[in-house]
Amino acid sequence: MQPDVSALDLVFTRIVPVPRAHIWRAWTEPDQVVKWFTPAPWKTIACEIDLRPGGRFSTVMLSPDGQEFPNVGCYLEIIDQQKLVWTDALLPGYRPSPKPFVTAFLTLSDCDGGTCYTARALHKDEVECRKHAEMGFQTGWGKALDQLVELVQTF
Amino acid sequence: MQPDVSALDLVFTRIVPVPRAHIWRAWTEPDQVVKWFTPAPWKTIACEIDLRPGGRFSTVMLSPDGQEFPNVGCYLEIIDQQKLVWTDALLPGYRPSPKPFVTAFLTLSDCDGGTCYTARALHKDEVECRKHAEMGFQTGWGKALDQLVELVQTF
Repeated sequence: MQPDVSALDLVFTRIVPVPRAHIWRAWTEPDQVVKWFTPAPWKTIACEIDLRPGGRFSTVMLSPDGQEFPNVGCYLEIIDQQKLVWTDALLPGYRPSPKPFVTAFLTLSDCDGGTCYTARALHKDEVECRKHAEMGFQTGWGKALDQLVELVQTF
Repeated sequence: MQPDVSALDLVFTRIVPVPRAHIWRAWTEPDQVVKWFTPAPWKTIACEIDLRPGGRFSTVMLSPDGQEFPNVGCYLEIIDQQKLVWTDALLPGYRPSPKPFVTAFLTLSDCDGGTCYTARALHKDEVECRKHAEMGFQTGWGKALDQLVELVQTF
């Protein structure tokens, strides 16, 4: 299932000089996710992954001033080393969420120079989309990806 | 993925003297859905089905006084003749919905006397669950199933 791209979506894309298998590992092992997921000086202090449709994907982020921000959602589609789709509009087990905000598609494909890494964020309306853009979607995904690329050098 | 059953859920279950294959057909072909889906004197006047994860499941119901009530959501899991999971918390293509309310699990299994037919409705909180119960969940699913059983006699 491909998302419709529209004024309701944000897209981040970059070619990175690392193999798909390593990126996949960084995204799907909780012990790795906590090392790169949140742009410093923010931290990710917890992560749980149940890698199947309806399974849990949750993180807890820690702000520089010590506030914790939990996020919980579930996976929707998983194609090994190619595609990961998850949402916070549904809790694990597909229960409707009290705080729906975004569905995210991560797609990975081989290309000259390494891996083409694309993230799409789908929102319910333009207000939510703009809010996400103003929260720093592009900068945040870019800094986090820098951290991911640095991490996978150690794999 | 099995749902957690809790105070946030409603469950309807009945054994019906018809084969699973016929029930599945009544649920997954739009031309059949419109014949049984809404307890009379309400009608279902439109149905669209794209039977894959993320694919559209939408209906339009018509009240006895002529008001139209559209519902749109997407499928999450499909196991032929056994399990159908869909939600209105996500639109087709998994976009977060402006009007999230329910995720539904339909499960069918063989048993003495025909098919064990079970529907579970998952809500985000007890208020939503109670609202759904008061809207007539049990009566509505029962009357609709009577109509389905009558319909599949013609298959």
